[in-house]
Amino acid sequence: MSQAFKPSLDWLLVFVPVAFALEYIPTLHNATALFICSGLAIIPLAGIMGRATEHLAEHLGQGIGGLLNATFGNAAELIIALMALNKGLIGVVKASITGSIIGNILLVLGASLTVGGFKYREQRFNRTATQISTTSLFLAAIGLLVPTIFHYSAAAHNAWKPVVAEELSLGIAVVLFITYICTLAFSLVTHKDLVSATPDGSAAHAASPLPGADSTLPRAGSTEWAKGKSVIVLLAATVFVAWLSEFLVTSVESARAQLGVTEVFIGVIVVAIIGNAAEHSTAVWMAIKDKMDLSLGIAVGSSLQIALFVAPVLVFTSWFMGHPMDLEFTIPEVAAVIVAVFIVAEISKDGRTNWLEGVQLLSVYLILAILFYFLPGGH
Amino acid sequence: MSQAFKPSLDWLLVFVPVAFALEYIPTLHNATALFICSGLAIIPLAGIMGRATEHLAEHLGQGIGGLLNATFGNAAELIIALMALNKGLIGVVKASITGSIIGNILLVLGASLTVGGFKYREQRFNRTATQISTTSLFLAAIGLLVPTIFHYSAAAHNAWKPVVAEELSLGIAVVLFITYICTLAFSLVTHKDLVSATPDGSAAHAASPLPGADSTLPRAGSTEWAKGKSVIVLLAATVFVAWLSEFLVTSVESARAQLGVTEVFIGVIVVAIIGNAAEHSTAVWMAIKDKMDLSLGIAVGSSLQIALFVAPVLVFTSWFMGHPMDLEFTIPEVAAVIVAVFIVAEISKDGRTNWLEGVQLLSVYLILAILFYFLPGGH
Amino acid sequence: MSQAFKPSLDWLLVFVPVAFALEYIPTLHNATALFICSGLAIIPLAGIMGRATEHLAEHLGQGIGGLLNATFGNAAELIIALMALNKGLIGVVKASITGSIIGNILLVLGASLTVGGFKYREQRFNRTATQISTTSLFLAAIGLLVPTIFHYSAAAHNAWKPVVAEELSLGIAVVLFITYICTLAFSLVTHKDLVSATPDGSAAHAASPLPGADSTLPRAGSTEWAKGKSVIVLLAATVFVAWLSEFLVTSVESARAQLGVTEVFIGVIVVAIIGNAAEHSTAVWMAIKDKMDLSLGIAVGSSLQIALFVAPVLVFTSWFMGHPMDLEFTIPEVAAVIVAVFIVAEISKDGRTNWLEGVQLLSVYLILAILFYFLPGGH
Repeated sequence: MSQAFKPSLDWLLVFVPVAFALEYIPTLHNATALFICSGLAIIPLAGIMGRATEHLAEHLGQGIGGLLNATFGNAAELIIALMALNKGLIGVVKASITGSIIGNILLVLGASLTVGGFKYREQRFNRTATQISTTSLFLAAIGLLVPTIFHYSAAAHNAWKPVVAEELSLGIAVVLFITYICTLAFSLVTHKDLVSATPDGSAAHAASPLPGADSTLPRAGSTEWAKGKSVIVLLAATVFVAWLSEFLVTSVESARAQLGVTEVFIGVIVVAIIGNAAEHSTAVWMAIKDKMDLSLGIAVGSSLQIALFVAPVLVFTSWFMGHPMDLEFTIPEVAAVIVAVFIVAEISKDGRTNWLEGVQLLSVYLILAILFYFLPGGH
Repeated sequence: MSQAFKPSLDWLLVFVPVAFALEYIPTLHNATALFICSGLAIIPLAGIMGRATEHLAEHLGQGIGGLLNATFGNAAELIIALMALNKGLIGVVKASITGSIIGNILLVLGASLTVGGFKYREQRFNRTATQISTTSLFLAAIGLLVPTIFHYSAAAHNAWKPVVAEELSLGIAVVLFITYICTLAFSLVTHKDLVSATPDGSAAHAASPLPGADSTLPRAGSTEWAKGKSVIVLLAATVFVAWLSEFLVTSVESARAQLGVTEVFIGVIVVAIIGNAAEHSTAVWMAIKDKMDLSLGIAVGSSLQIALFVAPVLVFTSWFMGHPMDLEFTIPEVAAVIVAVFIVAEISKDGRTNWLEGVQLLSVYLILAILFYFLPGGH
Repeated sequence: MSQAFKPSLDWLLVFVPVAFALEYIPTLHNATALFICSGLAIIPLAGIMGRATEHLAEHLGQGIGGLLNATFGNAAELIIALMALNKGLIGVVKASITGSIIGNILLVLGASLTVGGFKYREQRFNRTATQISTTSLFLAAIGLLVPTIFHYSAAAHNAWKPVVAEELSLGIAVVLFITYICTLAFSLVTHKDLVSATPDGSAAHAASPLPGADSTLPRAGSTEWAKGKSVIVLLAATVFVAWLSEFLVTSVESARAQLGVTEVFIGVIVVAIIGNAAEHSTAVWMAIKDKMDLSLGIAVGSSLQIALFVAPVLVFTSWFMGHPMDLEFTIPEVAAVIVAVFIVAEISKDGRTNWLEGVQLLSVYLILAILFYFLPGGH
């Protein structure tokens, strides 16, 4: 099958033993090298987790399978964020939420449209499903904006208290999470034909508002995996991702200092690229094959999942951990998310894409990366 | 006629005597109870005013009738706001402007789309008329944003003066009011076929950019009222609304303190719900009957009327009263209006609605309500 | 040809000798009069430069000609800005960038739609090309927003330094400039049929995302100019525009003080109207002739050129001059640009226009003009 020619990121698995060596052989210890190698090693493992989830989903039928996909689609990001949360690196956690959102809709989608646009003069996609996603992205941006507005308004009255910010954030997290459940119900139950699969996975296929809701996402490998194999691979990959995330998170502070960049830059740009490399590779590949619905579904859906599922789950977990996390982001972070959502809504509204639109998305990403590079540190 | 089965809010009229009892029988005096009962009593009276206005409009022909409808459509809100203005409760007045705008486009429209969407898989409406409305909403949001920008920019130069803010606001109120006149001219004169009535009030009917511009708005009662009856009912209901608004406004401060919520929360959430309950009920009812153009026309048109007609009229009146009111809103209020306008523009751009879009609007309303609940008081 | 009846601005050339007299005859010296007369004198010269550029472009073929047009289309604004930059009037330079952007998309386009809409009930244009332009406008707005966000975020950490702001701005200017080159490549090379000319310049003609990319822009004069004449006229007009800009810029400070308005108001409103009068006149004329694609192309394309070409070139030039200019705008300026971009995106999304949309654009312009009038001075 043509999928076989897809450039694989699996060779990056070589960094798994390297990362372990750097961590456990004292003479090799070097924080920056550990940070880079564990980051590179997570990339193919995140891809393997994704494939195992899809194979398993196949065995579980469209309903439960779709739910599984939708829930574990961004498991690697979630694991990295939980590890960072556990270490109290709240700034990195929040920055990686921001970074995953803008990385998916600007960098991943921008690269897909540019590469796809170099091959095809114009590419088309289903507007209806995409509009549902962009509306949800607006909702997510509002959810991230409101605690920041609260912060500045309350501070202006000298009435800002951490506990109030945490309660407000918890309330918003609940609303976002309920909206996510409703979006799943919409995609998997009431309006599943909007995201229905055509037997040949052709371009007539409708875009899914959620990546996992779409069980025809072409897999990197063409043969089916047995249920047992899927479960074992998923578990093993998860363990390794968690282990490597631990390395990543423990080395982030020294690496950051050595590289001379800020915590926000690490979170927004570096961690986000690591966590989303698998989506990135698949989305670009789908664009090259003119399957723009899948390409858009992966990029936009992944952003949505981060904002409406991962972010609320992190807030809930932080309460269980006894150190509640609020959803107050810095103004540059909020602005970056809002700007990214607008530009993607603008570009997707006509159902057609071309290379210039890809370049426009990448330009916005570049402008934001420049901003985060120059911003002084501290959350 | 099927209209007869519409659930009526008229039983709330029972609160009219209760409110009078609470006010005039000293032993029953209780500010919170008075606030609640006069609020509940205004709801059906606002509905009756609306019906009387429509019956009267019928007798006056489409032109003058439409104008009457467009001018008195939000008379209850206007009366409450004038009473509050007279008491110097500027914060409540402004908050109720914000609340009416977001309440109509998020709560009323959100409930309509959700309820309608549970019954119909997909509902359609006329995009052209709706787009004119959403553009006007953008304009209104800009009008409310600019004085706030002025406030912060001038304050940063230590050059902010109340009199300048009032003059700036007066200038903007004039521009908004002229735009409203132009919108009326567009709807009632030059492009009235865009809002033309079909004889059977069918779903082919185009949405009106203004609620009153549409003389076929189905009335709760199916028989026509005589001109005299319409005038008398209108006058009587207006007197009672004014009287009860007086009770509402005098009790608001003690009720607020007793309920432990802020002035902004009262204005944005509570007063706005009271003033718009009649629209709310009608818009949801129209959605159930799959008349989405009417449902959207009521919700969006009502917001427009508040922003482009009621707000400027309050500014003009405040100058005549000798205590000029400016249009400087708090940042959360401005943000709420902008956010609401964007989400409704996003949802309405494809001319189709479903239950998820309703849920998305309600989620945004909920997020904003949480914000206003937690915000410290003071305008 | 019917073009002959187009009202000409050439009679304003009478102000050329008047301006020279005011400058060089000592007894006539009056800063305000000089400012006004040199401003009025630049208007027809900017128009002549435009015509000469188009005639020359005709001789050079579509590719090079389009490039020439795209590069010199806003030469007058560029010259005025360079003169002001040379005098160190950074505030005026930045304000004139803001003013040119909002002036073109609100005042020029608003007037065009209003005047066109009085003649035609509804006018149509090509949505595809316009969408590319509005996306680029969003990108430009983001580019102007980011340095301002940087300013406030860095200042909150007491970490703002001029040199960092200048480097950040240079980086963003490079990204904007590259995007401009890509937009040219898209319009002139890869997707030139999207902007292809129909032989009769009919309304079927597609809108160009850049004004110069369209070689069929009807010229004010109907006969063709020889190559030599074009070059000589272009050079002569350029020399005079530069000379008069020198007068304009030297007199701006005293004129401003005498007229009692702020530097920002002069830049945003006055200089911007002078620099764009030629476009203004042509865009309105095209609207009257129902050539909305050209009308939109001129207004939107001109804004784009200012943001993606003129602004970066000014930043680059300022580095060569040894006094780097940053792209940090005031909050009212950034808000004005964002608001203008949104309203034009909203209005252009359905491919149809009417007089009310023109009035809405003009209302937004008026609201912003009121804001800049009342704002205290100082950049």
